[in-house]
Amino acid sequence: MPQFLDTRSDDFEAAFADLLSAKREDSVDVDEAVAAIISDVRARGDAALIELTERFDRLRLTPETLRIPEAEVEAAIAAVPKDEERALRQAAERIRAYHARQMPEDAQWTDPEGATLGWRWTPVAAAGLYVPGGLASYPSSVLMNAIPARVAGVERLVIAVPTPDGVVNPLVMLAARIAGVDEIYRIGGAQAIAALAYGTPTIPPVDKITGPGNAFVAAAKRRVFGRVGIDMIAGPSEILVIADETGDPDWIALDLLSQAEHDESAQSILITTDPGLGSRVAAAVDRHLQTLERRKIAGRSWDEFGAVITVGSLQEAAALSDRIAPEHLELCVADPGALSKEIRHAGAIFLGAWTPEAIGDYVGGPNHVLPTARSARFSSGLSVLDFLKRTTLAQMTPGALARIGPAAERLARAESLEAHGLSVTARLRRLNEEG
Amino acid sequence: MPQFLDTRSDDFEAAFADLLSAKREDSVDVDEAVAAIISDVRARGDAALIELTERFDRLRLTPETLRIPEAEVEAAIAAVPKDEERALRQAAERIRAYHARQMPEDAQWTDPEGATLGWRWTPVAAAGLYVPGGLASYPSSVLMNAIPARVAGVERLVIAVPTPDGVVNPLVMLAARIAGVDEIYRIGGAQAIAALAYGTPTIPPVDKITGPGNAFVAAAKRRVFGRVGIDMIAGPSEILVIADETGDPDWIALDLLSQAEHDESAQSILITTDPGLGSRVAAAVDRHLQTLERRKIAGRSWDEFGAVITVGSLQEAAALSDRIAPEHLELCVADPGALSKEIRHAGAIFLGAWTPEAIGDYVGGPNHVLPTARSARFSSGLSVLDFLKRTTLAQMTPGALARIGPAAERLARAESLEAHGLSVTARLRRLNEEG
Repeated sequence: MPQFLDTRSDDFEAAFADLLSAKREDSVDVDEAVAAIISDVRARGDAALIELTERFDRLRLTPETLRIPEAEVEAAIAAVPKDEERALRQAAERIRAYHARQMPEDAQWTDPEGATLGWRWTPVAAAGLYVPGGLASYPSSVLMNAIPARVAGVERLVIAVPTPDGVVNPLVMLAARIAGVDEIYRIGGAQAIAALAYGTPTIPPVDKITGPGNAFVAAAKRRVFGRVGIDMIAGPSEILVIADETGDPDWIALDLLSQAEHDESAQSILITTDPGLGSRVAAAVDRHLQTLERRKIAGRSWDEFGAVITVGSLQEAAALSDRIAPEHLELCVADPGALSKEIRHAGAIFLGAWTPEAIGDYVGGPNHVLPTARSARFSSGLSVLDFLKRTTLAQMTPGALARIGPAAERLARAESLEAHGLSVTARLRRLNEEG
Repeated sequence: MPQFLDTRSDDFEAAFADLLSAKREDSVDVDEAVAAIISDVRARGDAALIELTERFDRLRLTPETLRIPEAEVEAAIAAVPKDEERALRQAAERIRAYHARQMPEDAQWTDPEGATLGWRWTPVAAAGLYVPGGLASYPSSVLMNAIPARVAGVERLVIAVPTPDGVVNPLVMLAARIAGVDEIYRIGGAQAIAALAYGTPTIPPVDKITGPGNAFVAAAKRRVFGRVGIDMIAGPSEILVIADETGDPDWIALDLLSQAEHDESAQSILITTDPGLGSRVAAAVDRHLQTLERRKIAGRSWDEFGAVITVGSLQEAAALSDRIAPEHLELCVADPGALSKEIRHAGAIFLGAWTPEAIGDYVGGPNHVLPTARSARFSSGLSVLDFLKRTTLAQMTPGALARIGPAAERLARAESLEAHGLSVTARLRRLNEEG
């Protein structure tokens, strides 16, 4: 049974605080094991990768077969039904169009002191995308990670995807092909992250690693952060639906379940101004849980972490939403545009009853890699910016240096950084001499 | 003695590779100690902070005195000489003007399928800036961290600065005042990072932590990453100067020394097309090292990590520069604009002989918090974007859902996510019924 809360009840604050702080993931401490794996890959390169892949994926590789050859990719792709390919291509096109608009502009201007200032964006040279194996090996995630990288202008795009027992996911191969991935390696876990970050004789290192993964992958990303760039450390998925009396209980139930079916640790919450709708949604969820393929996973998630919260007004709903800072926020209300303006912390907002969250997972256009576990308070979904970096530019004229240099001299002295000051002084002296 | 390399010599590649991979920092493993400190602060709050501050800073505090009261800030500020204040205000104004231009735009459009898409930027609600104590307590860093946060619209801006033996840095207080900091706590180290991330009864938690620090601070930031946002893990400072025969040896020597004087682990490199200039710069460095206040630090850095590289052309210089991916890059050449276009990986570029790097540390306008240790390959200096996050927006019409929904259904089925598909199917069915 999910929790039923009501902001008008006396114990609401305590119950809501519990909901916010509920620990949904067993944080297994794999840090030591991961440190050992990374050292091993750094020390022994391909040999370590091969050994670890045999141990974890029951797959015997050689340096020559670490990479999936073109012919094998082609053969896998040939197995994809045509309608799946069409759907994937439509998704890719829409994702590309959305992300193309994110390209930031360079800037350059000369200020009143005569200093020319600005910045310039350039792409990361090589990016590695981690794709989990098995159940969570999603072709849609390949598109969501690879397309922004390509739009940014990344030249070398690499995928690491474990293939337990040698099983390759055809749709993942096709997604990689459509997105323009250059190399695919059949490695996974912390060893794959280590190989991407440090390189091996067979796998040149990359500059940035993105993509979801299990506890080992997450710990490895945290460890290699700094050596390479990483995206976020993703937690289990979440959805918050805010609905008024216009909400359709069956649609909302399915939207809640489409997060719950991801993972037993996923969280689905409904906040509604209509207590009757709350009950009808809960009943509809129960009904679907009779037949849903993933009913065991979805049921556990809903029972354990699900919640239906009744509020007095949509303003109250927006305020609670900001405390949750949800990854996905659906506004199933009469005027979603107005309500969305009251929301500040959310990864993605889906406006109106005709925008199920699942559209965002596949074909909406925006990225589905979004901040989880309340991190929408301070971080954003994956974007083209994650594959770009900015170089700042500054050029002084003698006149500009004369006008702003003395302040730098003064502050350098205050900070006891003499050479800093002298580097300005030497130039200003020349100016005076030349008078 | 710094290293002298020449691209025409046979052992250049090996020597340059050594230079690139030189480990400049002792990475003391403080991770376990830091984990214990964080747990302690989470468990005991203020009491832990007070105990640790007594141990590390020899300073006895109470929950009431953790925060520096207004009156004490005022008293400290009163001690700042007027010309220092003027310099600091000029710097703040220029930093504010530069960063104001970084504010990104929201976007919204309706695409050919009828889907309305877009995104919206909002500021982080609360940010904490760490300011090191002692020698490296730089008022300029307070400006560089706090002003972008304020420009972004962060409402609550907090500083943590250790005050060993109770000594407060007046210029740091003034910088905090000028930048609009709301609260200043006299705490440092991993305990300060833990307090900012998790909060204590006296210190409400923040959403984002930025600012440099020692190994304890860096390890703590790495650990709280995810709970809050962090900026980068900064390494020792670096400068690369590219000079042709027009370079002034004395100016370049001072520019090299202004990095070297920061830290024994700092690195200063000159790449020049003019071997004669290389020798003259090295001689000028030696001359200044006779008298410089921080000659011990600067001398060690120069001897140990300094390098003078002679190249055959500026193109060759640009290519080497990209392999170094320097934090600071000075182009002391006749046509710096042309050369800068050949550079891809650098935190900040200073164009022309009249733009010493020290200008960028204080009053240029761009941020001086920049990617070190080759991380300019994948990351950028601090900016307004670090204190903003983006929410993506999507709104379908029934027509838009009819056009793109089927692809989502197909992909959901391929990924075995039934509820995802059903959430679209239920809506499309309604459309058909109404159709």
